[in-house]
Amino acid sequence: MKKRVAVIGAGPSGLAQLRAFQSAAAKGAEIPEIVCFEKQANWGGLWNYSWRTGLDQYGEPVHGSMYRYLWSNGPKEGLEFADYSFEEHFGKQIASYPPRAVLFDYIEGRVKKAGVRPWIRFENVVRLVEWDAATQKFTVTVQDLAKDHCYSEVFDNVIVASGHFSTPNVPEFQGFDRFNGRIVHAHDFRDAREFAGKDVLLVGTSYSAEDIGSQCWKYGAKSVTNTYRSAPMGFKWPENWEEKPNMQKVDGNIVTFGDGSTKKIDAIILCTGYKHHFPFLPDDLRLKTANRLATADLYKGVAFVHNPALFYIGMQDQWFTFNMFDAQAWWARDVILGRIALPQSKDEMIADVTDRVAREDAGADAHDAIQYQGDYVKELIAETDYPSFDVDGACEIFFQWKDHKKEDVMGFRNNSYRSVITGTMAPRHHTPWKDALDDTMESYLEN
Amino acid sequence: MKKRVAVIGAGPSGLAQLRAFQSAAAKGAEIPEIVCFEKQANWGGLWNYSWRTGLDQYGEPVHGSMYRYLWSNGPKEGLEFADYSFEEHFGKQIASYPPRAVLFDYIEGRVKKAGVRPWIRFENVVRLVEWDAATQKFTVTVQDLAKDHCYSEVFDNVIVASGHFSTPNVPEFQGFDRFNGRIVHAHDFRDAREFAGKDVLLVGTSYSAEDIGSQCWKYGAKSVTNTYRSAPMGFKWPENWEEKPNMQKVDGNIVTFGDGSTKKIDAIILCTGYKHHFPFLPDDLRLKTANRLATADLYKGVAFVHNPALFYIGMQDQWFTFNMFDAQAWWARDVILGRIALPQSKDEMIADVTDRVAREDAGADAHDAIQYQGDYVKELIAETDYPSFDVDGACEIFFQWKDHKKEDVMGFRNNSYRSVITGTMAPRHHTPWKDALDDTMESYLEN
Repeated sequence: MKKRVAVIGAGPSGLAQLRAFQSAAAKGAEIPEIVCFEKQANWGGLWNYSWRTGLDQYGEPVHGSMYRYLWSNGPKEGLEFADYSFEEHFGKQIASYPPRAVLFDYIEGRVKKAGVRPWIRFENVVRLVEWDAATQKFTVTVQDLAKDHCYSEVFDNVIVASGHFSTPNVPEFQGFDRFNGRIVHAHDFRDAREFAGKDVLLVGTSYSAEDIGSQCWKYGAKSVTNTYRSAPMGFKWPENWEEKPNMQKVDGNIVTFGDGSTKKIDAIILCTGYKHHFPFLPDDLRLKTANRLATADLYKGVAFVHNPALFYIGMQDQWFTFNMFDAQAWWARDVILGRIALPQSKDEMIADVTDRVAREDAGADAHDAIQYQGDYVKELIAETDYPSFDVDGACEIFFQWKDHKKEDVMGFRNNSYRSVITGTMAPRHHTPWKDALDDTMESYLEN
Repeated sequence: MKKRVAVIGAGPSGLAQLRAFQSAAAKGAEIPEIVCFEKQANWGGLWNYSWRTGLDQYGEPVHGSMYRYLWSNGPKEGLEFADYSFEEHFGKQIASYPPRAVLFDYIEGRVKKAGVRPWIRFENVVRLVEWDAATQKFTVTVQDLAKDHCYSEVFDNVIVASGHFSTPNVPEFQGFDRFNGRIVHAHDFRDAREFAGKDVLLVGTSYSAEDIGSQCWKYGAKSVTNTYRSAPMGFKWPENWEEKPNMQKVDGNIVTFGDGSTKKIDAIILCTGYKHHFPFLPDDLRLKTANRLATADLYKGVAFVHNPALFYIGMQDQWFTFNMFDAQAWWARDVILGRIALPQSKDEMIADVTDRVAREDAGADAHDAIQYQGDYVKELIAETDYPSFDVDGACEIFFQWKDHKKEDVMGFRNNSYRSVITGTMAPRHHTPWKDALDDTMESYLEN
């Protein structure tokens, strides 16, 4: 009987996995039956925008943390697919920091071309995955949301590609139960215009804090304040943006900070990160890791050391994204196809994880972290037929990006970079980011 | 081996079930081992207020739809426990429409006295219930959230008491994906003060629409508008409240109604109801019913006709609440204890359901519906040792309450009623509801 592989999620990681198998099939390989379970009605994962928050039309947690007016916060030249360039998709080179709709279109373009949509069961949410040691198979229990029907199927491999920016980490601070304004996690933030004219507090120094704060500023917030624990972000902020140490408590609408100062606040946006959350996985299959470059318990960052019939894609903290997911997906595919052999012993796999952790820990700064993850991508690519590309060149683009942010945090998106896939320089966008209120694809492509 | 019974949820219905078993034990009966699984960190279900919305600290859907400043929207004399009066709990009679904290204290008082807290596993969420026809037992798979540990246990009976006001029904209207204000379902509404000075739109004519609109009005909304499909609520609203037919679409911040009129709106609150949602139940165990007085597939409104080892408490649409849950819990208990025999055939149970549906459908209005549910409560009580009380008297209180609302929708909570349990008249509250901004228990008990 033919092998069966379950892929959980049809976001960037899951789609990379589908494309990896389809690419092998296109080259003549015999591939397993692939079934991809996707909770949402469309593919794209995080990039599939919804106005919904909290629970969706089926009572399931809304997956997306995407908000309106989001533009990529890193250059597209760092995430370009090696097998499907921006120029191939758009018929021309485009500017470097595309808004959501443009990136969604790009992600979709590749998998449309690959023809893998029939492999996906949309609005099917995985409830439970169980491993049977006797049969060496997984039983996957699924709810078909549209049909309100629950069923189970058996698989040889399971690939978890459900993301880790969907389940908010939501701490409580003193006085939250009596605050008279809105408290919302970045996960449920949708439209910066809601905060026009308001004094907005962002808790944290994450990318969410930086970007949502910038959105609120761009769309007319009266003031933006963010709190930090160890260190401020330290960018050259606009006049009405300040960084304050440690959120302490809120009393009515007055927030107290770690330096004893206070401020009246209308709304609190918790930019306190996300959790690796797998409510569908029992103890023996569930990844428990910090959000870091060298995840716990994943051999080569992909195969679960406690049961290497199970794979996780994209569970790392990320500088590299789409092309790293590709590198991982091609690698997982090749293990399943028998092209790559896993180590014989679990100890050997654990040693690989230990070594990765030590090497990450030895890095001193963001520069080292970028290079570390670039090297990881190179390592995986070298073991499969994923098209090789100038990963060091991509690292160099990330270094420039960091510098551009330091120079002008509200203007870094006006810069352009050269594609490491096609060698073409991106055009400069027609409008500075802070003045570009229209985030449609039509507007963005008018270069 | 001793029988084991799982109770899912420690809200009003689940606590009624625990009290039912404890009461039998207190009278000398041998009872099964009871394990109650509760997702939240405390008991009280809906009445356990949290500032959280969307997903909680563990990434689980926030159960509570409770908001700040909520006062009971029906007289407490309609929901009083027959075995634990308000006077027993508070040491005196209290006014008729208590705020949340007062009702929470009352619910808690009875189960504290019963000593059933050790039966509850808090922060334990049920992931899946499976029925094994061979062993005639249930396997319940649970996630201990605090310990991040997944485990399974076997039970003879399962009693589902997880409520049906936790999972919002969230329809989409044209333009929602481009609306520049906040869109929130009543489930995630928390503090009316957020809407002070705003033009608020409530979609629907449910209790949520009536009560959240009243809250927003009380705490300073600029205007309140609600939409209806079949008929307006028709109360004598304050000047800045209007009812409009059919929400059609929103364009920017302009809402269009079914009569073609438009209005600028700052925030949209969807009061579009809740779903019976049991993500932990497979097809063979999952109740599928409309929100009505005569639920589908429940013999006597309690025993699941497709597998009568499974019970559901409180799944009806409700005029009666706490004392109806008691009547059901005592009845389910007596089936499990072998004191009540179920019909031999499934057909007989289905005929019971069909009859209940027909009798509900024969009713003409709310008056008939109240009497219908009162009769149902009487029917169940007659079959157990739950203390009998004047259910018709309670119906009479509901009729008066309806009249009081018709007279003055912003003043009905200033009325008092006589307890059908103790015969005592409730005092008039010291402050009219619309002026009582302090909803603490201390303030409420100052009579």
